[in-house]
Amino acid sequence: MFKLYGFAVSNYFNMVKLALLEKGLEFEEVTVFGNQSEEFLAISPRGKVPALGVEQGFINETSAILDYLEEVGGGKALLPSEPFARAQVRALMKEIELYIELPARIGYPEAFFGAEISTALKGKCKAELLAGIDTLKRHASFSPYVAGDSFSLADIYFLYSIDLACGVAKKLFGLDLLVDFPQAQELLGLLKQNPHVKRIAADKDAAMAAFIAMAQAKAKG
Amino acid sequence: MFKLYGFAVSNYFNMVKLALLEKGLEFEEVTVFGNQSEEFLAISPRGKVPALGVEQGFINETSAILDYLEEVGGGKALLPSEPFARAQVRALMKEIELYIELPARIGYPEAFFGAEISTALKGKCKAELLAGIDTLKRHASFSPYVAGDSFSLADIYFLYSIDLACGVAKKLFGLDLLVDFPQAQELLGLLKQNPHVKRIAADKDAAMAAFIAMAQAKAKG
Repeated sequence: MFKLYGFAVSNYFNMVKLALLEKGLEFEEVTVFGNQSEEFLAISPRGKVPALGVEQGFINETSAILDYLEEVGGGKALLPSEPFARAQVRALMKEIELYIELPARIGYPEAFFGAEISTALKGKCKAELLAGIDTLKRHASFSPYVAGDSFSLADIYFLYSIDLACGVAKKLFGLDLLVDFPQAQELLGLLKQNPHVKRIAADKDAAMAAFIAMAQAKAKG
Repeated sequence: MFKLYGFAVSNYFNMVKLALLEKGLEFEEVTVFGNQSEEFLAISPRGKVPALGVEQGFINETSAILDYLEEVGGGKALLPSEPFARAQVRALMKEIELYIELPARIGYPEAFFGAEISTALKGKCKAELLAGIDTLKRHASFSPYVAGDSFSLADIYFLYSIDLACGVAKKLFGLDLLVDFPQAQELLGLLKQNPHVKRIAADKDAAMAAFIAMAQAKAKG
């Protein structure tokens, strides 16, 4: 059985959790926040979540975990079998991560944690987010899923990146990133009806209080 | 035959080029700088290099291109066949990218392009680079390659990330990132003896003047 290390508020944790649920694989959740203790660094060399515990040891980095599950996990395939189509899903995952999820993180301190970021960083955050959304408009098919007519790993990245990016854009810039992007809005609506997505959202809500307490304790040093 | 779009000074372009050469695959180089023209955005949805032209269309994002080449290219394998070992190589590639290559980019404007970055960004660049090097110390095996006794995609990421990170650390902080990391120094020395690596370095040197002219023209608007 797989052990999934992390916490229910983490979007990358939830990416792996959704893949495990969609594939119908058994797993146990081990709640841990990312940290730099020797104990946790033996599990995760950068002290980040998620990590996946398997018989032979630990696997880190969401994309590496997801590829591993495709290769050994059995259950529903979340990557197409044809190599060019697989490559498009992988490129879309990376584009969402590098050009939407990571730029959104620049804005987290101000959007979610009551800190302020510099005008220069705000400008970078906004310009990169808008370019990332344009990238998705150019490359994704939304027919109705990100990469075509089947649910794939690209939808998992989309679901757990776009909501945070929209939150940052709204809070920092008063911008609705999806205002002229109805296909993305429709896909979000469709994905949110998925029972596994609903379960993950409920688990996240239930874990929010503990997460906020941890974040505040950390901010106080 | 594959078409590799990009330019010989780009480290990500050189990652794919080294994979193609190591695998013994035929390819043609198409020199192009990343840009936001409609023409190039039809090849690369974020306007970045490298992109790989194949019979069915274009593949973007270095890691997606490298996975595709493993799946269809034939030639020498650059990922282990056993799933847990493959996952470790993929995790190492991602750790090098996210925790060494991307943090180093924060310092590029000041290290390589004569601009200045803020004290806050400099602090972030330094702290993240040091944490990234520590991550590699914890996870890589260097026996003698990053992920074990065989050359893999993780070595390609290592080779074309660590030199830039070292350049930034030296220039901005007067720091030698590899001072107490002899295994990494030895592996760099070993990789630099590879004839394909030498060819790529020579191609880079030959292309440097054109790259600098482009960068200066861009800076002038």
